[in-house]
Amino acid sequence: MGLELYLDLLSQPSQPSCAVYIFVKKNDIPLELRTVELFKGQHLNKEFFPASKNLQRVPLLKDGDFILSESVAIPIYLSANYQTADHRYPADLQAHAHIREYLGWHADCIRGTFSVPLWVQVLAPLIGVQVPKEKVECNRTTIDKELQLLEDKFLRDKPFLTSQQVTLADLMAPEELMQA
Amino acid sequence: MGLELYLDLLSQPSQPSCAVYIFVKKNDIPLELRTVELFKGQHLNKEFFPASKNLQRVPLLKDGDFILSESVAIPIYLSANYQTADHRYPADLQAHAHIREYLGWHADCIRGTFSVPLWVQVLAPLIGVQVPKEKVECNRTTIDKELQLLEDKFLRDKPFLTSQQVTLADLMAPEELMQA
Repeated sequence: MGLELYLDLLSQPSQPSCAVYIFVKKNDIPLELRTVELFKGQHLNKEFFPASKNLQRVPLLKDGDFILSESVAIPIYLSANYQTADHRYPADLQAHAHIREYLGWHADCIRGTFSVPLWVQVLAPLIGVQVPKEKVECNRTTIDKELQLLEDKFLRDKPFLTSQQVTLADLMAPEELMQA
Repeated sequence: MGLELYLDLLSQPSQPSCAVYIFVKKNDIPLELRTVELFKGQHLNKEFFPASKNLQRVPLLKDGDFILSESVAIPIYLSANYQTADHRYPADLQAHAHIREYLGWHADCIRGTFSVPLWVQVLAPLIGVQVPKEKVECNRTTIDKELQLLEDKFLRDKPFLTSQQVTLADLMAPEELMQA
């Protein structure tokens, strides 16, 4: 059995599957795509999701007996295994470090902030919960502040977040940003 | 000028400096330590924190003109530059991927959950804010659930989180866990 990638393209904001999907398609990595519909609870059903040792999160990669979850870990593993274009996750120490720096800030700041509007304006009303207006405003202020940092500290005068070419950082960012 | 590391050992829960400090000490990496006291606003003062291009977050590494922030990015950069013991951040693809997997889950789940008790039980009362009891209880339930996942999915029957030896994952975890 070759590589299998379990994912749900609607898995955001729990864990983004789309970024991994784009990475796999763009790099022509030969693997079987297996959809696991989270809204139907398929990640809890062994028929759809046989990987019992993982965290029941998608995306998840199965490479023989090797099982790997987490949306940043999977493209890094595939990059090394499939010699994808170096600029996406470069070997150069400083270029590599700048991508890691962005991904750290992204995990700490962007992920927590940009998923909030979907929860408070779409999902919460669906279950009858009204989020106080000041909380919505506070989140909007944080979003504005972080977009400014994204421009001033990362993008600056470059076309992409950490260099002149598309990297893993540029793959991870849009899926979070577009939620808001 | 050699390497300089700007940090505040009290910087947790904003960004953990202690893990980077332990990494540097344990690996005998020769650098100048510069304390930036966040509570005194020294990260906003150019006298203490001359690195104007960064996110005003500590820890921050200065290697000549090269400036790097984020507590995971810094040890990875130093590992590569100083050939630290391979088991801490191994070159082996699968071992490496399991560390990245833990760090992804850690950033997504552990960091957001284990910093909450400090905020709601220590810092919020200091500024006269009382957090509703049900929110404290909800956080405690999530902490229990995540500790169980840490044991069942990562630690299992091993002495360390991702292998038989201490890795970068084991360096990052305790600083968050001990907050609660």
